[in-house]
Amino acid sequence: MKPYKLVLTGFGTVGWHVADLLFHRRQHYVSRYGADVQLVAVCGSRSGLYNPNGLTPDQLLPLSKQNGGLAASPQTSASFTGTDFAVSCGADGLIEAGPTDFVTGGAGYLYLQAALKQGMDAISLSKGALVKDYPGLAKLARERSAFFKISGATAAALPTIDLIQYNLAGCEVAEMSGIFTGTTNFILTAMGEDGLTYEEALQEAQNRGIAEPDPSFDVEGWDTACKVTILANAAFGADIALSDVTRSGITGVTREQMAEWREQRLVPKLVGRITRQNGQVTAQVDVGLYPMDHPFAQVRGATKAVLVRTDVMGELLVMGGKSDPRAAAAAALKDLEHILERRFR
Amino acid sequence: MKPYKLVLTGFGTVGWHVADLLFHRRQHYVSRYGADVQLVAVCGSRSGLYNPNGLTPDQLLPLSKQNGGLAASPQTSASFTGTDFAVSCGADGLIEAGPTDFVTGGAGYLYLQAALKQGMDAISLSKGALVKDYPGLAKLARERSAFFKISGATAAALPTIDLIQYNLAGCEVAEMSGIFTGTTNFILTAMGEDGLTYEEALQEAQNRGIAEPDPSFDVEGWDTACKVTILANAAFGADIALSDVTRSGITGVTREQMAEWREQRLVPKLVGRITRQNGQVTAQVDVGLYPMDHPFAQVRGATKAVLVRTDVMGELLVMGGKSDPRAAAAAALKDLEHILERRFR
Repeated sequence: MKPYKLVLTGFGTVGWHVADLLFHRRQHYVSRYGADVQLVAVCGSRSGLYNPNGLTPDQLLPLSKQNGGLAASPQTSASFTGTDFAVSCGADGLIEAGPTDFVTGGAGYLYLQAALKQGMDAISLSKGALVKDYPGLAKLARERSAFFKISGATAAALPTIDLIQYNLAGCEVAEMSGIFTGTTNFILTAMGEDGLTYEEALQEAQNRGIAEPDPSFDVEGWDTACKVTILANAAFGADIALSDVTRSGITGVTREQMAEWREQRLVPKLVGRITRQNGQVTAQVDVGLYPMDHPFAQVRGATKAVLVRTDVMGELLVMGGKSDPRAAAAAALKDLEHILERRFR
Repeated sequence: MKPYKLVLTGFGTVGWHVADLLFHRRQHYVSRYGADVQLVAVCGSRSGLYNPNGLTPDQLLPLSKQNGGLAASPQTSASFTGTDFAVSCGADGLIEAGPTDFVTGGAGYLYLQAALKQGMDAISLSKGALVKDYPGLAKLARERSAFFKISGATAAALPTIDLIQYNLAGCEVAEMSGIFTGTTNFILTAMGEDGLTYEEALQEAQNRGIAEPDPSFDVEGWDTACKVTILANAAFGADIALSDVTRSGITGVTREQMAEWREQRLVPKLVGRITRQNGQVTAQVDVGLYPMDHPFAQVRGATKAVLVRTDVMGELLVMGGKSDPRAAAAAALKDLEHILERRFR
């Protein structure tokens, strides 16, 4: 049986779930692909764990974030992290699950770049590097015949990239619009259905762990704008920057507006939209108003959805998919299966 | 540039659209895959057209069903049809778009079997052969390292097989349920929303060309049962027969029941369901009642939808997708792209 060795960069909550799912699915990879998938290294920002024959559940799974993460293990070493280590540890593929930096791309950008340059396959869960330079990374992957997959970075369990690249292969996709951010949809739903003010709805979202303590990234539309930037470049073949996306958020929405819209039987949704017209791809994020019989009007709470309009296959709506860290990890491992399918069958 | 030669068996409306889309997308296949996709033969039940260097739009496109089909061409010959011809005409792949026979599998079964035995790739748009013996055909494909794809046979533009095999790869799918038949959903919607009797709603569906003159295949639940049989075998790895599917239709639904359900704010839908429990896969077709906030309640008219429940990715709903012959043809050509992706990249 041929081994397929992985290095995992970033070991926060999502990284931990990636490792846990990899161990769970080990036998599945053997029986389906004849692949012995081994996690040989896990790199944190300052130190990492390494075993050329594969790390074990015993070594890794006790190191959840609550238990202190990687640093809680006596076996970590500062030599087992960084791009030089990641590309020389003998791995066939790299899974990037580190923190995200939308300006520089952060460490994730360096990891992905180094791995792809080396001809390693790469799977990204973090968005920073992709917002920064998806086209550059994709070009590297093509040049080195490596696979570069990003399902976990764009709405996780909800298929977005897949939808255009796989389910609609061959179609012209004229428009993709989506409720891409669970937090903002939760807040708008709570304002609309329970009559809460923006502040009350935000508080409720924070109480439930749906909104971050600093919610600005979500509520100002940045999260949606980042996803839309990545999707425009990855699924529509554009080359746009985050700054090219016309963007507004939900912070200005008032209870009075909400009441008025409700009276008109319109439902507000923060929507990201990518449009192709005369070969030009443009992207925007704003609050759109939908009549009750529009599918988006039914997408409530923290649920996400995406709607695509095609030439010959009509319109398709996809809705749902969990948004938790384990679902994001599962999306990355879906990417891994697609790579195994290509490398082993 | 490497050629990829196709033989198309069946040249009714869907077959014509397959040919038309193939010609339209020829340049796309060249630029994306470096593949020179040629349609070398088209076989009808009694005669066919053949050109080892590729048939041309001029030769084929005037031969629509309304214009008399293949028989209207002076160039057809009785030697250009049948399984012996199909496997010796030099094609790399076969697209089956003939009429369907659920009992014997019909000519389509023989074509698919012969092609796969020969190691040719095969794409099926017709359901008969798949209901009859998907597991056997899939086994042949595996033995001969051929690709065998069936998107066009199971709800066309609505992704069903894809969803489980690709978008949810690695997940355990516990249940897939779907509104798989546009006709029955149109009739139930018209009864529920416009207060029509079953007979009136059926008449309306026939007037619009949604229901067949003999609607029994749809309204008695056979169409859904066939799709569910294929999906259980192809996507859930089961080996069940059409007769294993518990089946009921919508012919018994009365205006009185409808009124009662409406009062209870329940929406009836003819739903096919595949369930995996303790490793056992079972399938059924019946009228289910859904509360207004269930996604199925929003699937109106001839629209189709599918809902899957997974272990770690939560629930996903996919809704929409055109149901016309061109969309079915496009689904088959999506399958072709996935094959080209594997054979040429």
